[in-house]
Amino acid sequence: MKNTISILVENKPGVLARIAAMFSARAYNIDSLAVAETMDPSVSRITCTAVGDKLQIEQIMKQLRKLIDVIRVINFTTANGDHITREMALVKVSAKAKDRAEIMRTSDIFRAKIVDVSHESLTLEVTGDENKMSAIFELLKPFGILEISRTGQVAISRGSKRLMDRQQESMDRPQQIKRPQRKKR
Amino acid sequence: MKNTISILVENKPGVLARIAAMFSARAYNIDSLAVAETMDPSVSRITCTAVGDKLQIEQIMKQLRKLIDVIRVINFTTANGDHITREMALVKVSAKAKDRAEIMRTSDIFRAKIVDVSHESLTLEVTGDENKMSAIFELLKPFGILEISRTGQVAISRGSKRLMDRQQESMDRPQQIKRPQRKKR
Repeated sequence: MKNTISILVENKPGVLARIAAMFSARAYNIDSLAVAETMDPSVSRITCTAVGDKLQIEQIMKQLRKLIDVIRVINFTTANGDHITREMALVKVSAKAKDRAEIMRTSDIFRAKIVDVSHESLTLEVTGDENKMSAIFELLKPFGILEISRTGQVAISRGSKRLMDRQQESMDRPQQIKRPQRKKR
Repeated sequence: MKNTISILVENKPGVLARIAAMFSARAYNIDSLAVAETMDPSVSRITCTAVGDKLQIEQIMKQLRKLIDVIRVINFTTANGDHITREMALVKVSAKAKDRAEIMRTSDIFRAKIVDVSHESLTLEVTGDENKMSAIFELLKPFGILEISRTGQVAISRGSKRLMDRQQESMDRPQQIKRPQRKKR
């Protein structure tokens, strides 16, 4: 089962390395990963997707919660409440004169944006969930996809609830020494 | 200076951990990172942005090229030829009845898509380069940004050239033992 996990972490060097090492120590491959700052520059948000059975993922979640730099973790796939996932891709398609109209039509249908044109290629910006992405790649394949640069999935819960306000989902978080107040930069 | 680096790597467990560890060993913070599969499932593409002076970045590039799982590296910021960068964000904005119209107008102007609505919030999907993202965040701030989930930047060169076909930019790649043929899965 594919799991979409969001992690709020302190934004400092080494945190990502520690999290990536934790996955790889279990020979556990991350399919996609997206990291970026939040509105608070001292906090980053990591979204990753990984395939695994329930037991494996539960172990990973427990280990993540033990890391001191991890502020919140949620597995959207198993959490209560609905969520939205989206990804974005830049797709460079080989575009001969005769194919150009058809590619642009496909792009229109999927509400993609054309971000670059050359004599031999078109570059599209596509956003959507996993199914939509697979569908447009499948349609563009016959023309020749030259190159692709994808962001990996990001996720957000529906409604006005924030990840930051969520209670940790389970009681397995170890008793911690009180986290020192984060310094304002 | 902010650098946008794209890396093609073998898609297997541990590769991301090794790359992240390389950055953190230099106490070097990655601002954003996006990892996803390419059209060839045995190859992943990593795009990361990091601030550093020329010397620092050159060192990082050299170290990256030494890693056996790294197939190609390019620093778009210093490479010849133009490139496009884009990122995507899901932004949950507090939306009281009186603010709703104004938020939707802002969303229209920035060609954002509304992907979720609740009684107290709107969630927008925004894509664009760094400047556009800052601009829309700035405009949405007064309403109250509840939460944000960003993908980090991805980049692609303009024209029909592919990263895979590029020669390594410099001659500092060490003489390698011939890479064994990758097995078809």
